[in-house]
Amino acid sequence: MSDRPAGHFITLEGGEGTGKSTLAKALVLKLEAAGIHAVLTREPGGTLLAEAARHLLLHPPEGEAWSPLSEALLVNAARRDHLEKLIWPTLARGDWVICDRFADSTRVYQSIGGGVAQNTLLSIEREVLGDTLPSMTLVLDVSLEIARERRAVRAGALDTFERRPDAFHEAVRAAFLAIAQAEPERCRLIDAGQTPEGVLAAAWTEIGTLVDRPGAVSP
Amino acid sequence: MSDRPAGHFITLEGGEGTGKSTLAKALVLKLEAAGIHAVLTREPGGTLLAEAARHLLLHPPEGEAWSPLSEALLVNAARRDHLEKLIWPTLARGDWVICDRFADSTRVYQSIGGGVAQNTLLSIEREVLGDTLPSMTLVLDVSLEIARERRAVRAGALDTFERRPDAFHEAVRAAFLAIAQAEPERCRLIDAGQTPEGVLAAAWTEIGTLVDRPGAVSP
Repeated sequence: MSDRPAGHFITLEGGEGTGKSTLAKALVLKLEAAGIHAVLTREPGGTLLAEAARHLLLHPPEGEAWSPLSEALLVNAARRDHLEKLIWPTLARGDWVICDRFADSTRVYQSIGGGVAQNTLLSIEREVLGDTLPSMTLVLDVSLEIARERRAVRAGALDTFERRPDAFHEAVRAAFLAIAQAEPERCRLIDAGQTPEGVLAAAWTEIGTLVDRPGAVSP
Repeated sequence: MSDRPAGHFITLEGGEGTGKSTLAKALVLKLEAAGIHAVLTREPGGTLLAEAARHLLLHPPEGEAWSPLSEALLVNAARRDHLEKLIWPTLARGDWVICDRFADSTRVYQSIGGGVAQNTLLSIEREVLGDTLPSMTLVLDVSLEIARERRAVRAGALDTFERRPDAFHEAVRAAFLAIAQAEPERCRLIDAGQTPEGVLAAAWTEIGTLVDRPGAVSP
């Protein structure tokens, strides 16, 4: 596509109230200031069709609910569109992608509490991602107390996931920590209990190690 | 769920203009007349959420298109909802399900013309269906000429698939014939070039062999 090397694909993961969206925006600004063009996006969503699928996922008709496996398939349909139309083309032209949630969120949210078996989720994930893995995944971790306070601040806009009980958020936190531990090459754990400036500095230190490394793989 | 044995799950497959919908309706009436309660349904669709996914699939926003793999995932999200909320409960209470298109259509339409690899489609299919296979799949086969005439009759309502060129319909026909040949235990080829009465009689002869056999497997 271009003579420039492929860009890096950074995903931000973690439970609700860990500050992913705030960090994502700050990272894009800091990358741009450093002369690296970066595209900010999110999942589920990021393209017109993926956002339509997100709407269907988060706002089913009154009284209806998707099962965890249906959710996982719907999110992956959106993810494939996102990869094909936004993520891969951006990386191919040498720009970076900062993505607020990605495949790890599916592994976590669609498996906990009697959800889909990990093997099933990983099998679908492999078909959808092909050889593309994030260059780096920043796993934002924070105590349940701080996350609860942050969620309360935006209580008016809480969605279905955010309204769940503490045990749910605890399981989510543990599942993200397990992924970070299982894939230390890809994942970096970030203490998200710091100030936004502290979180950004910690993330920037990790991301700085990517600059001279080959970018993410796209087909 | 009930003391009655599980019902049978009959799927109707074949290209456009082969007469699947007409046969499906006639079969349900004939089963009811024989004292067997049968539910008529279709894919993609059949439940509220699956029909919403069908709409997103067949009517993407202007200028947008799903790729074959995204389509396959979206159809399978709808299929899982359909299984969970309509097909499995119906079979479990001893009733039959007559379904206009099912998993074979995904194998065919999402793979032809440079689409998704069969292995990928089968891997996703396995995760979604579990141990459920149709008791019997009636593969309706008709010459391209007759199918073209039938499609022309309802030209006003032609959807994206139906408007494709002959080479596409030929590839669809060949792919359905290949499935019927590869799985003779499950599939019965029906000559759909006959009158509707002739097609119904041929289908009824095949279905009659199921009556004393154990029904379809649901979880």
